[in-house]
Amino acid sequence: MLKSHIGGGDADHIKIRGLDLVEDLVDKHDFVEVLCLAILGHFPDQRMKRLINNSLVTSIDHGLTPSALSTRLTLHGAPESLQGAVAAGLLGAGSRFLGTVEVSARFMQDAMSGFEGGVEPSDAQLRQLADEAVARSRAARRKIPGFGHPIHVQGDPRALRAQRIAEDEGYFGRYFRFALQVSQSLSASVGRPMPLNATGAKAAVLLDLGLSPEFGKALTLIGRVAGLVAHAFEERSRPIGQDIWNMAVAASEGGEP
Amino acid sequence: MLKSHIGGGDADHIKIRGLDLVEDLVDKHDFVEVLCLAILGHFPDQRMKRLINNSLVTSIDHGLTPSALSTRLTLHGAPESLQGAVAAGLLGAGSRFLGTVEVSARFMQDAMSGFEGGVEPSDAQLRQLADEAVARSRAARRKIPGFGHPIHVQGDPRALRAQRIAEDEGYFGRYFRFALQVSQSLSASVGRPMPLNATGAKAAVLLDLGLSPEFGKALTLIGRVAGLVAHAFEERSRPIGQDIWNMAVAASEGGEP
Amino acid sequence: MLKSHIGGGDADHIKIRGLDLVEDLVDKHDFVEVLCLAILGHFPDQRMKRLINNSLVTSIDHGLTPSALSTRLTLHGAPESLQGAVAAGLLGAGSRFLGTVEVSARFMQDAMSGFEGGVEPSDAQLRQLADEAVARSRAARRKIPGFGHPIHVQGDPRALRAQRIAEDEGYFGRYFRFALQVSQSLSASVGRPMPLNATGAKAAVLLDLGLSPEFGKALTLIGRVAGLVAHAFEERSRPIGQDIWNMAVAASEGGEP
Amino acid sequence: MLKSHIGGGDADHIKIRGLDLVEDLVDKHDFVEVLCLAILGHFPDQRMKRLINNSLVTSIDHGLTPSALSTRLTLHGAPESLQGAVAAGLLGAGSRFLGTVEVSARFMQDAMSGFEGGVEPSDAQLRQLADEAVARSRAARRKIPGFGHPIHVQGDPRALRAQRIAEDEGYFGRYFRFALQVSQSLSASVGRPMPLNATGAKAAVLLDLGLSPEFGKALTLIGRVAGLVAHAFEERSRPIGQDIWNMAVAASEGGEP
Repeated sequence: MLKSHIGGGDADHIKIRGLDLVEDLVDKHDFVEVLCLAILGHFPDQRMKRLINNSLVTSIDHGLTPSALSTRLTLHGAPESLQGAVAAGLLGAGSRFLGTVEVSARFMQDAMSGFEGGVEPSDAQLRQLADEAVARSRAARRKIPGFGHPIHVQGDPRALRAQRIAEDEGYFGRYFRFALQVSQSLSASVGRPMPLNATGAKAAVLLDLGLSPEFGKALTLIGRVAGLVAHAFEERSRPIGQDIWNMAVAASEGGEP
Repeated sequence: MLKSHIGGGDADHIKIRGLDLVEDLVDKHDFVEVLCLAILGHFPDQRMKRLINNSLVTSIDHGLTPSALSTRLTLHGAPESLQGAVAAGLLGAGSRFLGTVEVSARFMQDAMSGFEGGVEPSDAQLRQLADEAVARSRAARRKIPGFGHPIHVQGDPRALRAQRIAEDEGYFGRYFRFALQVSQSLSASVGRPMPLNATGAKAAVLLDLGLSPEFGKALTLIGRVAGLVAHAFEERSRPIGQDIWNMAVAASEGGEP
Repeated sequence: MLKSHIGGGDADHIKIRGLDLVEDLVDKHDFVEVLCLAILGHFPDQRMKRLINNSLVTSIDHGLTPSALSTRLTLHGAPESLQGAVAAGLLGAGSRFLGTVEVSARFMQDAMSGFEGGVEPSDAQLRQLADEAVARSRAARRKIPGFGHPIHVQGDPRALRAQRIAEDEGYFGRYFRFALQVSQSLSASVGRPMPLNATGAKAAVLLDLGLSPEFGKALTLIGRVAGLVAHAFEERSRPIGQDIWNMAVAASEGGEP
Repeated sequence: MLKSHIGGGDADHIKIRGLDLVEDLVDKHDFVEVLCLAILGHFPDQRMKRLINNSLVTSIDHGLTPSALSTRLTLHGAPESLQGAVAAGLLGAGSRFLGTVEVSARFMQDAMSGFEGGVEPSDAQLRQLADEAVARSRAARRKIPGFGHPIHVQGDPRALRAQRIAEDEGYFGRYFRFALQVSQSLSASVGRPMPLNATGAKAAVLLDLGLSPEFGKALTLIGRVAGLVAHAFEERSRPIGQDIWNMAVAASEGGEP
């Protein structure tokens, strides 16, 4: 017996988490609400919906990134398959790019694992946990994603805005407080300002809302598909795939075998 | 020079169609609005937004479909890569499943190509075009997707609802009118009721809103990614990949080479 | 009941087309022989094996092609997944690149469909078929892949070599003869030399050996995977993914939305 | 400047590692030789060629595995894209299936890292390293792939054959010797026979030939593509994709949300 609680249906009725697609969902709930229902099993409250929309919007496009280039190069060779071009771009959303929110959230979750579900930790406790986690990461020469910014050394405006929204909506919690302690601990350890950045803020908010690190990555994938579609469509009307190929060949030198 | 009008940015500012991600978009526009901006170059009006939300919601999940099964089987072998599992499911969104709205819309667009941009055609003109298009398709033994329903032979409730929304919102136009004529023409030709179904209605609405067939397919891909994520997450917590494998092997017989 | 004639097995014995992997195949037959057994159901004779090896070798690598670039850009973002990087590169092997042998073979097969299995056609008959097929393609403004060369206007050395091997091995047949007639017909029609090229020769040989157009494409995919692996490994030790990204961004101009 | 040492070319000449595709490689070297040239930068000697052929042959097909099922389900939805169906199957070749040779080889490589390039270790030294590595893995509750067999508790015939070939060809070395010590150490630790199996033997041979763990995975991917093509072709002529879908739906129960 294969058990799936997501949905199912017959030729006439399709259900998602027990609700009828036509009767209960279409034209009554928007995409973000049903996305949440399908993945998490419940509709989001307003603040979770706001976070999800912001995460999706942030992920849509960052210009001619490796994933956008892969989509365009793939469509150039296989114009018959939009799904293939989008899939090729999606495959680059791994641990190094587009997956950093997940890595940052895992770092915070691991460091805070002792406090899961217990009483609210004090700032001193959070600082101690931050010092220990930073020390472990630096000993293992592991980069901590979510901290540091090349320009805004005194504070990334996107992180500050995320903090303000969290405070407004009442979910500024232990993970965001911990992230701010990590920023201080890390700055002291490396000897230069390491402000919480947009990635780290997103990771902290995710955890304060009770969501998983992997859910953060999932939102990145869903949002990015929209951007990859945009690149695929533009590639059809104003192709640059051949130019990228030419440019790469012109810039290459074979060298000796 | 590579020209892309979608977006771009530097370490500090990311732009989509000339608008600043942080200043102009995040927390000011929701995902569906920015999706539309990225792909089409402009924000949607209310009725287009309603259509896009409905299309996305309809596409999220249809239970243990081939694409959901591929995602789960892929995650079973490669649990380290969420993007790989989602990409595998997406690759099945081709011409036969999940791509039928696009095929249906192309049929309507081709059949109506003589009227693009001209005066509004009469019902008699539409019926003649429908008769010709049906005749061509049947001569070539090509199936016309978007028509026929195994149960609702007198009218698919999802198509009827789509028609009502189109009338309410004021975009019931020549393509929907044409689709209703095709239904009659096809029913006469095959000798049994071939009502406009959900796929055909979606295709007609898309075209009446001035959107392309391929945009319909794009919405299917974006919506389905959310459902594939749901299956991937459920596969992690309640795996069925191994059961599907066992079931397939148990049901197979090798036969002679 | 799921019927598959390819293979199967239990914890102890794996069979391919009825032969035992350990007892009958490993260390007794090489990869090309078992590849042929798995796909076609029989071992290749010597000339088919030679053709398959040559097709695979030809497909391995053509430098920094779109598929190699996609593999490298994907690995740059997701270094944890070799299979994802290779899959991304493979997805570009569509109708425009890496699939041209298949398209060329389909053209020949369609044009010759009247002669399937019958008596050997005369040169005059082949020329008439060629004239008709060329006229149809030119009327539909469809390019005929497999003919023409930017430099070797009097004859592509790779096609001449393929012809010599076919003659040596005794499988120079109706399809190669037809391809040479198409070259003459096409040259007359366009008014400049359109020699049979490497793609067209490969397509003709495939058909003369009784293989399908799609088998030609399959060999391209299998061979290319080896080349994509080579690029992925080189990307690990001497990365250029970041450079390609930088180069694309530097060369781009956003323009007005 | 993009540096790639694999190959390149212009419209007329394609080179792989400095050799001309047409002049030096096609019809002079077979697929396995040029695969090795492209990936490793040199032709294989006879024993390496034998190992590569055997690895490729072993990887081609294991029946209706998750990757074969994904390929068939994907082709069922997107019959227009052979490359998409093959890519979907390939994406399941991750850490849990089809990647175990790589994981096993990494275990051996890590455990033996102290002896890299030094003098030949004695059996007693190898046993001590084995004991330490087994203890570390068991303390971390990490499974050691490459050991144990459900039926052949006294010795996997495939591993015994691999050992005999290694001895015949003169490359029975420190890694195979170490693997045999791990088998003894692990058997003592878990209290039941844990013979070296086919996966472990393949990993040991790979390392004794000076090849990398990832090269082992690469061979698995290349070999498996041939098997996935076989399944895709069979799916076209004798489809079972719809049956698998039906079977999964019939066996599923939605349960409560």
